Amino acid sequence: MTLLIYGDRVSGNCLKVKWTAEKLGIPYRWIQTDVRQGETHTPQFLAINPAAKVPTVVLDDGRPLAESNAIILHLAEGSALIPADPYARAKMLEWMFWEQYSHEPYIAVVRFHRHLLGKPAEEIEPRLMERGRRALARMDDQLGSTPFLVGEALTLADVALVAYTRVAHEGGFDLDGYPAVKAWVGRVEAALGIEE
Amino acid sequence: MTLLIYGDRVSGNCLKVKWTAEKLGIPYRWIQTDVRQGETHTPQFLAINPAAKVPTVVLDDGRPLAESNAIILHLAEGSALIPADPYARAKMLEWMFWEQYSHEPYIAVVRFHRHLLGKPAEEIEPRLMERGRRALARMDDQLGSTPFLVGEALTLADVALVAYTRVAHEGGFDLDGYPAVKAWVGRVEAALGIEE
Repeated sequence: MTLLIYGDRVSGNCLKVKWTAEKLGIPYRWIQTDVRQGETHTPQFLAINPAAKVPTVVLDDGRPLAESNAIILHLAEGSALIPADPYARAKMLEWMFWEQYSHEPYIAVVRFHRHLLGKPAEEIEPRLMERGRRALARMDDQLGSTPFLVGEALTLADVALVAYTRVAHEGGFDLDGYPAVKAWVGRVEAALGIEE
Repeated sequence: MTLLIYGDRVSGNCLKVKWTAEKLGIPYRWIQTDVRQGETHTPQFLAINPAAKVPTVVLDDGRPLAESNAIILHLAEGSALIPADPYARAKMLEWMFWEQYSHEPYIAVVRFHRHLLGKPAEEIEPRLMERGRRALARMDDQLGSTPFLVGEALTLADVALVAYTRVAHEGGFDLDGYPAVKAWVGRVEAALGIEE
């Protein structure tokens, strides 16, 4: 049985799973699940994930798993996307938890409201923009000294953080102010073979 | 060199690290760092963690690590607090990422505003209470069928989630409505030797 990915193409969290599967050569079937059309609230979907969220995968033994970063950690276990060195692995996890708490709730949420719901800029809380810029500045600091977030090589921290950083402009964030981040987005897209 | 834990005693995120170190018998020194007194913004602290957040640990080789869940995953590597089975480990991570995205921003944030900043209940956004109750209901569902979040044994998912669940009443959440959660809090406190 092939990995089933229930995901919405417009969601960075869902694309993380797609990119990781492709990078690792894991065969998968993408089941497009449109959040804005309520497709995560059908009885069929709720039977797989009662939390009604994508991405959710069904593993080859039929068991479901949710939370984008937990999914990619599971898929990439034992691969070069997870550093063998314990400290480097811990730093990767530090970035991945930071992504969900201090980056996604600003960068992804603002982009969702502006780009996908069509809200005008003046309806976005200034606090969200300020926190988003702070997140980008922190990444720019790190990426000014290392090519990837955890050093010399691509890890899941880059996969997790590129997802919404590469579309941050759709939320009104200008990556020109973060040159190290901008260059890193290109490097990660190339490493993952992201084209669109 | 002993593990240094920079933490604030009133922060559940910080207590996760203390409990994990104690459970595993890791010698540590607690450096009380009062967030409300600005102690995470001193030059000394910023040199260790430019993100100005606790908990931050300094490992025995002198290297710093932040993000509570990344820290406890690092400390507990190879211990019984992390299941050996890959799927159980993935479910543990699913709960830990869910904690930071779908539980802490409601349960811990409301408790911070009410209990630590002294805000009256009517100044709390109803949306935050509703999301917090939804998180407790989801835990109650799971804990109605297994004694711990990932099955029969205590894991880091329980450590991460008990931190703010056990003080949820300080934010105005009534655990009497979630009997399986209430019983689980007692079990986890006993397993971790939490007394206060």
